[in-house]
This record gives sequence, structure tokens and C-alpha cells, in this order.
Amino acid sequence: MEQGKDRSLVSKVMDGLVTGIVEEKYGAILPPQDVLSKEFDVSRTVMREALSMLLARHMLDVRPKVGTRIRSMRDWRMIDEDVVNWRFRAKPDPLFMRDVIEFRMLIEPRAAAQAASRASVSEVAGIREAFDVFKTIAPGEPGYEAADELLHTRIVHASGNQFFQQMAAIIRGALTTVNPMINQKPGVWEISVRTHARVVEAIERRDPKEAETAALALIDFTADEIGREFSIEVPGRK
Amino acid sequence: MEQGKDRSLVSKVMDGLVTGIVEEKYGAILPPQDVLSKEFDVSRTVMREALSMLLARHMLDVRPKVGTRIRSMRDWRMIDEDVVNWRFRAKPDPLFMRDVIEFRMLIEPRAAAQAASRASVSEVAGIREAFDVFKTIAPGEPGYEAADELLHTRIVHASGNQFFQQMAAIIRGALTTVNPMINQKPGVWEISVRTHARVVEAIERRDPKEAETAALALIDFTADEIGREFSIEVPGRK
Repeated sequence: MEQGKDRSLVSKVMDGLVTGIVEEKYGAILPPQDVLSKEFDVSRTVMREALSMLLARHMLDVRPKVGTRIRSMRDWRMIDEDVVNWRFRAKPDPLFMRDVIEFRMLIEPRAAAQAASRASVSEVAGIREAFDVFKTIAPGEPGYEAADELLHTRIVHASGNQFFQQMAAIIRGALTTVNPMINQKPGVWEISVRTHARVVEAIERRDPKEAETAALALIDFTADEIGREFSIEVPGRK
Repeated sequence: MEQGKDRSLVSKVMDGLVTGIVEEKYGAILPPQDVLSKEFDVSRTVMREALSMLLARHMLDVRPKVGTRIRSMRDWRMIDEDVVNWRFRAKPDPLFMRDVIEFRMLIEPRAAAQAASRASVSEVAGIREAFDVFKTIAPGEPGYEAADELLHTRIVHASGNQFFQQMAAIIRGALTTVNPMINQKPGVWEISVRTHARVVEAIERRDPKEAETAALALIDFTADEIGREFSIEVPGRK
């Protein structure tokens, strides 16, 4: 299964490129591929492979006529979204569900609080807009999950913290797993709209404490339902 | 920069393999490479590439004479440690430092609390052992950072939550960045040993509340020092 020389050569080139990038050797745009191949004394194939690995990690951007742009380090993907998606595709077991709920309880209330303190005017407007779409779609209807994911993603993004922002992929995975389990419950639509509204309004009022409490209450509701289904206790809850 | 057909073929094969894995089609050990190549109707090179991508993500394990074992999903790497390490190699700016401290304040106190509730006897012993090594090495001396990282990693691991465990790579990155900045301060050794001891003892006494408070105090100390250095405010603090 070892690719031998080629694979380790690609790794070495990646590492060299990244070293150049973090030392700001290249400026905003990378030199053309053939120049880089010469600089690193490797074949164009190896260079192409190394660049495509960095591209997949959102570290580079190919712009027609401009060249290969180095992306802001905030965008560099510390989360491997493939693995996250695969992990959430497996049949959930009780321990996994407990861990998912605990993780959401950890991150989303704090992110909501920070969004209330820090979100820009246009970020707050984006959250309101996502909520206004979300509340028109019944759970289980087409578009519901996408709207739910967009709303949660925008809130986490508005926290302004780049690590929290990276965690959005895990939160989306969690929603994908959790939503189908609770969509069928009676009264879930009304409760869901009400609990989400409370978070959105707190962010609009710039009230971090209330945003945190509301975000926790939102997950609490999910946790109760999931807890019953899987017979698990979620000790992180207050 | 597109690898064209080959790259997308590898992706397709990876996806097929993972689908088989999450649907528990293969059991504990994957079929041999040539069998898989035939099953997916691809060359051995493409199959080898796909398998090596899953191997790098800790989803598979090659055991001599046994074959390719499917690892527990808990081990699957949702964090891209290469990107994390690269990100932390860049010169830190104030906003990045703020985000790092906020992230540690989010995760480490909760992880310490859960370690106090849930750690097994051998996990508690491992934490004590790591601390006993840590306290014998002065900040800045060889081995200090490794000992510090091991102690923090073991605490986060003992939380039992697989998402928290995955975040250990980010915490190690943070320590690598932060340690050289505060190692030179007078009195740092004494304070560092004392604050770490408080966390370890709370975990040993199975006191989640005290473990949480102590872990927060530990980061608070770092945050004060870093805050002064970078003139930043860390609003997540209590």
C-alpha cells in the first residue's frame, strides 16, 4: 500500500510549498507550475499532485488569467470534511449520539453568545434571512434540512472565531443525523421555530447571555428526544 | 492542476470502499487488494491510491500476515493534522491568538470536567504519570513541550468524548505556539506546576466542577500573558 518514493516526494514538496507560504516568500500569487517544478527540482506531475492536495484543503485557489492565489489562512481546512461526512453516514450508536450532543452543547451556545457580541450588521441580517426561510418549511419537507444547516452555519460563522467556524462541518453532520430522528415527533415544528427564533432574536438584540441560554435550550430539546430514543444520559446538560 | 480522470476515479473508489465499510459489508478485515481491484473494476494503482488515502486518515491499519484491518470509527481522523500543524507554523497574529485562547477556553475546561467524571482508573494513572514527568522539567528545557502536550492530550482523551479527543491536535498546536512566548517569564515554572497540579488533583478526586475551574484558571494565566504581549482582549473569559 506504500506508494514509495512518489508519495513521500509529494509530501516533501507540499511541505516546502507551505513553508514558503507561511514565510510569505511568494506574496499573494504562486509562481507558475513549471517555475515551481524547477525550483523544487521535481516533475510537473509531482508538482501538480502537491498543488492539488493544497487546493483540496482550501489553501489555494485557481483563478483564470490570474493564477494560483494563496488563500487566507482562516480558510485553510483543519477539518477533513470527507471523514466527517463518512463518519455521520454510519449507523449511529448511543455513544456516538451522546458525543454528538455533548459537542453541540459545547460549541453552539458559546458561538451564539459570540455572534451576539461580534456579528457584523450584514452577518446579523444573514442570520435573520436564513431564519425567515427556515420557518416557512415544515420538518421533513424538502429544503428543511438545508435551511436548518444554513441557519446554524451562519450563527457559528458569525462567532468570528476561526476554530469555531471550522467546526460548522461537524454541526452540519450532527443535524443531518439528528433531524430525521425528530422530524416525525408531534409538535416538533412549532417548538423548532420557537426555539430557533429565540436564538436569532437574542443575537439581533446583541444579548450574549440570552443567546447562549437560548442555544442551549434548543439543543436541550433535541437531546431530550434523542436521549429517549437511545436511552442515553447526556451529562453535559445543565 | 486537475488530475482529471484518475483523481476523480480514486475519489469514487474511496467513496465506494467507505460505503462498504459503514454498511459493515467487509467485517473486520478488508479483502486483498487484487480482489478489491476486481470488485471495483479499477487498476491496482488506483486501488492502492484509494487505500493509502484511507490509511492516512486512520481508517485502516495494515497488519503483517493479518491484512488490512478496518479501524474503529472513533479513530477516524476528522482533523487534518497536516493543516493544523501548518497553520500553527505561520507567524501568529493577534486575532489568531485570541481565537486560539478562546478555543482552548471552550474545550479544555469541559474536557477536564468530563475526565473527572468518566476517566478510567488507568486513564487517571496516565494523567498522574504525565504530570509527574512534566513537573520535573523546567520551561524551555528539552522535553518540556512534549511533556506538556502529553499531559493535555491525556486529559482531553480521558473526557471519553470522541469529538473532544479529535481536538487534541489543535490543543497541541496551541501549546507549541504559546509555550515559547511565556517560557521566559519569571516565575512561570512554579505557576505552571501549581496550576497543572490543581487540574490533575481534581480529576483524581473525581471533582468535575473543580477540574473545570482549575482548567480555566490554567488557561487564564496563559491568556493574561499572551493578552499583554499582543494587546488583545479575550472576551470568552470569566
